[in-house]
Amino acid sequence: MNIKQQSFRTIWPVADGQAVDIQAVEVIDQTSLPHEFRIVRITTLQAMIHAIRTMQVRGAPLIGASAAYGMALASKASAEDAALAAAAQALLASRPTAVNLRWAVQRMLQHLLALPVQERRDAAWQEAAVICDEDVALNKAIAAHGLGLLRAIAVTRQSAGVLNILTHCNAGWLATVDWGTALAPVYAAHEAGMQVHVWVDETRPRNQGASLTAWELGQHGVPHTVITDNAGGHLMQHGQVDVVIVGADRVSGAGDVCNKIGTYLKALAAHDNQVPFYVAVPSPTIDWQIVDAQRDITIEERDADEVGFMQGRLDNGELARVSLLPEGSAVANPAFDVTPARLVTGIITERGVCSPAQLVALFEQPVNG
Amino acid sequence: MNIKQQSFRTIWPVADGQAVDIQAVEVIDQTSLPHEFRIVRITTLQAMIHAIRTMQVRGAPLIGASAAYGMALASKASAEDAALAAAAQALLASRPTAVNLRWAVQRMLQHLLALPVQERRDAAWQEAAVICDEDVALNKAIAAHGLGLLRAIAVTRQSAGVLNILTHCNAGWLATVDWGTALAPVYAAHEAGMQVHVWVDETRPRNQGASLTAWELGQHGVPHTVITDNAGGHLMQHGQVDVVIVGADRVSGAGDVCNKIGTYLKALAAHDNQVPFYVAVPSPTIDWQIVDAQRDITIEERDADEVGFMQGRLDNGELARVSLLPEGSAVANPAFDVTPARLVTGIITERGVCSPAQLVALFEQPVNG
Repeated sequence: MNIKQQSFRTIWPVADGQAVDIQAVEVIDQTSLPHEFRIVRITTLQAMIHAIRTMQVRGAPLIGASAAYGMALASKASAEDAALAAAAQALLASRPTAVNLRWAVQRMLQHLLALPVQERRDAAWQEAAVICDEDVALNKAIAAHGLGLLRAIAVTRQSAGVLNILTHCNAGWLATVDWGTALAPVYAAHEAGMQVHVWVDETRPRNQGASLTAWELGQHGVPHTVITDNAGGHLMQHGQVDVVIVGADRVSGAGDVCNKIGTYLKALAAHDNQVPFYVAVPSPTIDWQIVDAQRDITIEERDADEVGFMQGRLDNGELARVSLLPEGSAVANPAFDVTPARLVTGIITERGVCSPAQLVALFEQPVNG
Repeated sequence: MNIKQQSFRTIWPVADGQAVDIQAVEVIDQTSLPHEFRIVRITTLQAMIHAIRTMQVRGAPLIGASAAYGMALASKASAEDAALAAAAQALLASRPTAVNLRWAVQRMLQHLLALPVQERRDAAWQEAAVICDEDVALNKAIAAHGLGLLRAIAVTRQSAGVLNILTHCNAGWLATVDWGTALAPVYAAHEAGMQVHVWVDETRPRNQGASLTAWELGQHGVPHTVITDNAGGHLMQHGQVDVVIVGADRVSGAGDVCNKIGTYLKALAAHDNQVPFYVAVPSPTIDWQIVDAQRDITIEERDADEVGFMQGRLDNGELARVSLLPEGSAVANPAFDVTPARLVTGIITERGVCSPAQLVALFEQPVNG
């Protein structure tokens, strides 16, 4: 999508200038947004793990793409079985919640181990690129199905005028390779000439809504308004939200949704006010192994400093972080919650929109099967 | 309650050093907490309105007490009918949501207009002091009734050990003259030797939870943990919250609760997880005139900068505010929401604990009637 009228993806391979073959990747550093637009070059597996851990790259699909390139970067050092297995292990440990990461690492590992060692390095870079292109294609399909859904909601709702969409966290193009998941339908609607407006939850801690969603919507010219995480219920009570669309870090086969902490609260409010609540996910985000999402999904407990400090720009233009809490106050920082399927109106996937209960059936048959 | 082992109220009259009679009030500046403990001296009506508007004083009961002293300060300049009526009007416009403000101003006005002009000034200071003492007495009664409730919950819940209480915003002693509303039972339980622990919602915007509730609990030695506003639902899903207690800016006779934005979301989560949800209010916070709380209560839309900026302490110790949003992003900032009575387990008042439906009956008969 566009940054200052120029088209970007969130991750791309680059030649390092010393060899013909591609040996590094570049990403948009999401920790410096919205204040600075900075591109980071990543040349080693360790640097990629650092980028994932520190959330320079984040969002379930982009974490998957980053992990795939992490395997490619690892293969530069050694493409032997043991080295690749160790790289896979290290990547899997970097963020426990996002199932795309596991999916991408396993796909890379299976693909590479089946090849002779000397072919693995080139194959790794090619397969990572394929994973990225596939992500974009999945998201474009989500955009198309979601656009149909938004058109239907615009026609059947009682109020006229601008269609108001609420989203939580960032599941825009910055969370993927391009287009986004939850925001893909919004971009499609905007480009199709529909009048859309997005309520952007601030999304504490880390403020991915205020800093990333607001920024990417602004860069692409989509009307939006930032609100605190506390405000969505009030807006729904007053008819100011036509539909909620969020992404997910993991969705169970039963349609339970693990997403950024606070998603569950918005789903409760949507349910209480008969506002449709949709989750947009490409199939690599669906974890068919999960039986009981509340029990089986590891919820990351992230650093207390994410709650205790806030980064922003000082009046003099410098970036700084300020401490928010009284000395000695303890902090708990669970990063995700699980929204039960009973609160989910539908799931928007690359194969279409379905109720949580229909998810298994929708993916039972391979598309080309 | 205690600040560094010393007992404080949030507001108190002081002699100005030049006259025997009392001519000023002092308050704890709540905008500089938790980083600096600062006392502000207020000598005029205009300064009091400024303190209310900028939230140097905040919390429904303390706003009422402050408005009462505002009338006393106004009477220094002139105690004529027209002057007092104008002062009342100006105070009423300073914060539209808190019903205590209206209650205190009307009480002061009625009391003073019934007296000869030359007696009004002294009477104003006396009546404001009575209002403050009454607030403390009401809150002590809430503490006693709430303590009984917490004891009952501690006995009947399935889990053993520490009793986990979740609160939103600040309805502690800083929101009142002393003791607090929602936190009054917590302080009583702590002093009675019960093992209590408070989950403190950050409470965006303005962070009254992270900056005020955490601070006052810390100063008084009550165990607590700060969480984001997004985290409460997840904690309730996992059995980590035994009871929610919040305060209110206004409660209708039907038991609908207008409180800090986000309260409704917590009430939904409590309801969904069978966690009891209580609202602690002294009777001046009950607005018997409200018919339809959703329709009839004016929800303040506060300054966008409350969302767009965050105040805190830099690494060098200085206080600073940082800008959080991309340039050009719009902001909406509704300050309160209304939690419908159907989500409220009970209301803790100075007369006892009752269900929302029993509120009218509880207050039908005057205590001494």
